[in-house]
Amino acid sequence: MKTIGVVDTTFARINLGGIAATEIKNNYTQIKIIRHTVPGVKDLPCACKKLLEESGCDLCIALGMPGGQPIDRQCAHESSLGLIAAQLMTNKHILEVFIHEDEAKEPKKLIEIAKDRAKKHAHNAVNLLLYPKKMMDNAGQGLRQGSMDAGSLLEE
Amino acid sequence: MKTIGVVDTTFARINLGGIAATEIKNNYTQIKIIRHTVPGVKDLPCACKKLLEESGCDLCIALGMPGGQPIDRQCAHESSLGLIAAQLMTNKHILEVFIHEDEAKEPKKLIEIAKDRAKKHAHNAVNLLLYPKKMMDNAGQGLRQGSMDAGSLLEE
Amino acid sequence: MKTIGVVDTTFARINLGGIAATEIKNNYTQIKIIRHTVPGVKDLPCACKKLLEESGCDLCIALGMPGGQPIDRQCAHESSLGLIAAQLMTNKHILEVFIHEDEAKEPKKLIEIAKDRAKKHAHNAVNLLLYPKKMMDNAGQGLRQGSMDAGSLLEE
Amino acid sequence: MKTIGVVDTTFARINLGGIAATEIKNNYTQIKIIRHTVPGVKDLPCACKKLLEESGCDLCIALGMPGGQPIDRQCAHESSLGLIAAQLMTNKHILEVFIHEDEAKEPKKLIEIAKDRAKKHAHNAVNLLLYPKKMMDNAGQGLRQGSMDAGSLLEE
Amino acid sequence: MKTIGVVDTTFARINLGGIAATEIKNNYTQIKIIRHTVPGVKDLPCACKKLLEESGCDLCIALGMPGGQPIDRQCAHESSLGLIAAQLMTNKHILEVFIHEDEAKEPKKLIEIAKDRAKKHAHNAVNLLLYPKKMMDNAGQGLRQGSMDAGSLLEE
Repeated sequence: MKTIGVVDTTFARINLGGIAATEIKNNYTQIKIIRHTVPGVKDLPCACKKLLEESGCDLCIALGMPGGQPIDRQCAHESSLGLIAAQLMTNKHILEVFIHEDEAKEPKKLIEIAKDRAKKHAHNAVNLLLYPKKMMDNAGQGLRQGSMDAGSLLEE
Repeated sequence: MKTIGVVDTTFARINLGGIAATEIKNNYTQIKIIRHTVPGVKDLPCACKKLLEESGCDLCIALGMPGGQPIDRQCAHESSLGLIAAQLMTNKHILEVFIHEDEAKEPKKLIEIAKDRAKKHAHNAVNLLLYPKKMMDNAGQGLRQGSMDAGSLLEE
Repeated sequence: MKTIGVVDTTFARINLGGIAATEIKNNYTQIKIIRHTVPGVKDLPCACKKLLEESGCDLCIALGMPGGQPIDRQCAHESSLGLIAAQLMTNKHILEVFIHEDEAKEPKKLIEIAKDRAKKHAHNAVNLLLYPKKMMDNAGQGLRQGSMDAGSLLEE
Repeated sequence: MKTIGVVDTTFARINLGGIAATEIKNNYTQIKIIRHTVPGVKDLPCACKKLLEESGCDLCIALGMPGGQPIDRQCAHESSLGLIAAQLMTNKHILEVFIHEDEAKEPKKLIEIAKDRAKKHAHNAVNLLLYPKKMMDNAGQGLRQGSMDAGSLLEE
Repeated sequence: MKTIGVVDTTFARINLGGIAATEIKNNYTQIKIIRHTVPGVKDLPCACKKLLEESGCDLCIALGMPGGQPIDRQCAHESSLGLIAAQLMTNKHILEVFIHEDEAKEPKKLIEIAKDRAKKHAHNAVNLLLYPKKMMDNAGQGLRQGSMDAGSLLEE
């Protein structure tokens, strides 16, 4: 049985961890989930690494919602670098699921993007762990999380 | 008994470490505090790592007050990356509490931001160590440090 | 017998891993290939490191197709830094093959660039592993992947 | 007896290492100094790490004088990140003392800034090693190196 | 007997490794040289680290010629960070010798810069290994590679 860590933030304005965890529970009975919440995106790398190394998680999903100011973009950038470093130190994947507050003006649209992105990456997480062939079958297919797929250019 | 390291700078124009340490002492009797002061924000990562590895701290709060020039933003960015790296090397959290000198023009307002941010993160620090469920209950609630909470979008 | 890991993404709109793997298979019978696919470019560093350390690969080719927005450039930058870090942690090369979606407006042209770049780097990968002298003979020759070679300035 | 490594560059247009080393010698008889010079600021992190790990230094002062072009700022940024990484790998402080060539137009003013910054950080280095309470007493006091102190906002 | 690794790229339009290696051979008989060539600047960090750890090199010279586009500057930046990281992981110096294609419009001028920079850094490499006092004697002397020395400000 595989364990997925789901880490989100109190800064986010949408319960992203809840969306991802529910999507996994509803679709895969053989996955155990451990949730954790930190203040902001810069706290995600450490929390994920602890789950991967100290709590036996096989993969983490790191969810956050950076604000729309330049300083927020920088925080997200720093967090992303930390998440990649944490993966390299553990040899385990961490899927980053960031929804930038300026991706949409309407809260309704932002929620829609967030749900689509969090749910699709929940499936990616399970596929990376259990069904790598499913991932490979979609190589170069222009898949998107948070919007419609872009599709393959080769078939245009 | 848990120990929290509180590290601040001589560059800052507000005694940020004092604010954070006092907030913890006033609210949690079961936390031991070790304070340390360095010249500037770029010295924070090493000081925190030493406290976490050599002085038995379970978590650190790193407080600084970068200036308003581009070079200051770059220093803060470098420090942030170092603080994340230090966490990944120790598997212990470091909460970054930076107040940028250009967040407000009036010293009075800047002090207000600083106090609010330092105090709220003092509670975050204790919650991460002792009350993780409190953190998880606030997942996606749009909490802010230094200003009023933004709130959850799902309830709009 | 040497093993090359070929890792690409579902985000890409061209099956880059397929192009690189086929080029190697068609030209070098003595190379074993292991393919892997991840969601996006930021997942490449971890996937490559796992192939290098856990699956016995001697070198990896990491292929991706970042979008044309600033946020996409930043993702590519973060991925590049991770790919370099993974190499330093394993002492094995990872050739980065990124095609930026804004390198050409016409899909046809973009596919042409992608094929040229992926194929040429497939040969670079084998040369680095088996024929280092071939690489050294081309030192300073202005070789390009994705376009015509620029050539040496010394011979102008 | 504590040992401080003083590393500077041949690129700098002021003998920064000499200023720092002299300031320490003139004020603290109980400190041993080891000097080293490298070509440019990007060579400082490795030189400092070698002094800290191979020559028994307890702390290093890294002095450089980046030029005024964008490429120079980038070099300084890369060096700063390396200096922070070196500290995290050794658990020893490295005080960065950079004077940017565009901080002043007049050579005379630049020399004045350089001397003030190098000397003040020489004292910071000794205080970090031997008198941590002196540092803590100045927490939040708005100290500056290279100019007059900004002072505490709380006392305005 | 000391060994210097000389690593360059097939992307460069000038045989930079050849220039550096020849300069060392012509001036220092007691230095052994190992050459290696990689596709581009982002492949330099791994190649240098392998030479330092697997081939017994005591120091490396990493030579490359980034293009003049923003993406090229970013590649150079990523490579520089990797070169610094490789030094910190090995405690051995890597001298970066980059000639940016937009440093001059005329190929003739670019070649002149490249030769001056590569040759001067070849001497720096030997001095760092064998004659550290020569380096220290030039501290703060405003030495430049690729152009005339800027000189010391203290003597103006």
